[in-house]
Amino acid sequence: MVISRKVKNALEGASWVRRMFEEGEELKRLHGAGNVFDFSLGNPNLEPPPSLKKALKTLADEPIIGMHRYMPNSGYSETRKAIAEYLAEESGLLFNENQVVMTVGAAGGLNVVFKAILDDGDEVIVPSPYFMEFKFYIENCGGQIRLVETNEDFSLNVMEIEKAVNNRTKAILINSPNNPTGVVYDQTSLKKLGEMLKRKNRELGKTLYLVTDEAYRRIVYDGVKMPIHFLYYPQTIRVTSHSKDLSLPGERIGYVAVSPLCEGADELISAIIFANRTLGFVNAPALMQRLVAPLQKNSIKIREYEEKRDLLYNALKSYGYHVIKPQGAFYLFPKAPIEDDVTFVKELQSKHILTVPGRGFGKPGYFRIAYAVEAKTIEKSLPGFKEVAEKYGLKGR
Amino acid sequence: MVISRKVKNALEGASWVRRMFEEGEELKRLHGAGNVFDFSLGNPNLEPPPSLKKALKTLADEPIIGMHRYMPNSGYSETRKAIAEYLAEESGLLFNENQVVMTVGAAGGLNVVFKAILDDGDEVIVPSPYFMEFKFYIENCGGQIRLVETNEDFSLNVMEIEKAVNNRTKAILINSPNNPTGVVYDQTSLKKLGEMLKRKNRELGKTLYLVTDEAYRRIVYDGVKMPIHFLYYPQTIRVTSHSKDLSLPGERIGYVAVSPLCEGADELISAIIFANRTLGFVNAPALMQRLVAPLQKNSIKIREYEEKRDLLYNALKSYGYHVIKPQGAFYLFPKAPIEDDVTFVKELQSKHILTVPGRGFGKPGYFRIAYAVEAKTIEKSLPGFKEVAEKYGLKGR
Repeated sequence: MVISRKVKNALEGASWVRRMFEEGEELKRLHGAGNVFDFSLGNPNLEPPPSLKKALKTLADEPIIGMHRYMPNSGYSETRKAIAEYLAEESGLLFNENQVVMTVGAAGGLNVVFKAILDDGDEVIVPSPYFMEFKFYIENCGGQIRLVETNEDFSLNVMEIEKAVNNRTKAILINSPNNPTGVVYDQTSLKKLGEMLKRKNRELGKTLYLVTDEAYRRIVYDGVKMPIHFLYYPQTIRVTSHSKDLSLPGERIGYVAVSPLCEGADELISAIIFANRTLGFVNAPALMQRLVAPLQKNSIKIREYEEKRDLLYNALKSYGYHVIKPQGAFYLFPKAPIEDDVTFVKELQSKHILTVPGRGFGKPGYFRIAYAVEAKTIEKSLPGFKEVAEKYGLKGR
Repeated sequence: MVISRKVKNALEGASWVRRMFEEGEELKRLHGAGNVFDFSLGNPNLEPPPSLKKALKTLADEPIIGMHRYMPNSGYSETRKAIAEYLAEESGLLFNENQVVMTVGAAGGLNVVFKAILDDGDEVIVPSPYFMEFKFYIENCGGQIRLVETNEDFSLNVMEIEKAVNNRTKAILINSPNNPTGVVYDQTSLKKLGEMLKRKNRELGKTLYLVTDEAYRRIVYDGVKMPIHFLYYPQTIRVTSHSKDLSLPGERIGYVAVSPLCEGADELISAIIFANRTLGFVNAPALMQRLVAPLQKNSIKIREYEEKRDLLYNALKSYGYHVIKPQGAFYLFPKAPIEDDVTFVKELQSKHILTVPGRGFGKPGYFRIAYAVEAKTIEKSLPGFKEVAEKYGLKGR
């Protein structure tokens, strides 16, 4: 035994997303990348907005002395200030730069938050379907994940969450817009969630945290207004990144923001900064911190993702697939026409369509389509989706 | 109790480097930054080499489609290939890109390596004085640090390491050139270390790893030839970064390289990539990966640090300080003229000189001077060092 036993076990149950990605690579070698329709990874196909490219060019043309050096572990004051101003405007709450910590993406941010709040055996409740990496992030810090079902339409089931709360519970982690379902948790359910958590705090004599992964926050459609989670519960910690809204996933730039209403916020933020340092992130990448500071209100063209959603959703519906129309992110999560999602995903593979089985997100019987791809990839994939639907007897329109 | 108990305890024993830094900020507010001589942080004052600035400008002028997207968790193939070629040339060993994993600096790399190899209770032996963050990196993954003394001149004491090896030992971590002493561990001691580890493997029927933190590898002086650790022991894992040699500490770009001679290397590398993903690093920052790939043989001007070392070392010796002349990194680690290093460091503070007490590195009675600062800062600080020396009765020349 040369490597960690824990890691060895985890490696054996390798990620479904990764497995599909690798089988896809093989298909691409065999048939050429242009003939394989890869919906396996949520890797945005859109380029960052022109404002970002311009900011990069300005910095490259006129470098600032010391711009690649260490800065405080929480990040540049100017960047945190710009984000705090944005958050204050969005929420009406009195955010200041000290409530913001720059992180190595949202994945880095979540690890940092869990390190800051969890002790061995503490539980974090996560509504399912869910992004499987959450399990590792929680377990890295000695915590345990506790899954609860969402409703049939993947909306938040607050009663289920309430039933799962116990003495070991430390936090609830929600991800909205959701990966893999694309669903946006609505205001009514968030209000109920906030009230339930306040009641539970009184009952249990402790303070539960609401951790919100909002990496897809700005990717919403149909004119939907994204609820401000901070407004429904004071002990809220937002974790997010610019991976999707500015299309920078490879650059690892995100942040954690603690509600100004949060009890004990100062100590919590000190713990978050400490975790950012000692988990080895040290600080979020310097150059990207500078680039994103003035772009807090910029985004890639969300409308382009919405068009892709419409194209794919309408086609799948017309072939008879059972699929919720999601209002955010860039995923569809249809029901597989047979119980065994792995067999169904393999059937799609035979048409050179790469998707991920629902069991990779805690929900067998479904499959995830990541549609942040070229429109022509979607178009060319449609006959394959149709043929497989017909094979399994789905009734098209 | 709202935050993690483990983190709360750690926060109470806050880092000495950080504490000195903060007291320094207060001094700067009072006396003006120009009148405070800050040797507290190892934050390189040199700018990255012109080749890096040029590479950044080229990318900003002609962006590559997709250059900010996700890539494999191990990093770009081209970057890993460039590093493998460099390592092969340096060592004569058959490195290929699959033995290299790009990481979020060396701190990220160390966390990833320890996650990959440690189970709860496993021990990692670290020669002291040592960089205190190592303790957190090891404990993050359930491991325990076991300190062993170095010799009087801070060279490696292999006998002490041997005495510390036991059934729970999983790895030895060495840092050369060393922070805080600047000492380079020589070939003879490394050869002895390698032989001892091979013997212990046979005796214990297990495989110990040698993890080498080589962040200062290229910062060596007096024409010293840095030993190639890979050549003395097959189970060697190099962790390094471009924070110092290309002056990019804020950008968080480094890598882990596993010796091609390492037993079970493939499984180990899979575990390292898995840890890189699930600890939330995901991948090293994309843009920096591209920039450093062609610069593997470039460096900032090492000679400038050597001149600073000479200036400061010669002055301290002439004032009567007891100090080892280090052949690398950018630290001096003199003996304090009194037992209590904290009192002594406070005395230097009264002359507006900021240093860090030796107990911040496991070695009370000493203090660390980080001299990667402007030459004029060193020059202006000298009278203060002299006065304090005289006050404590050191005999100058």
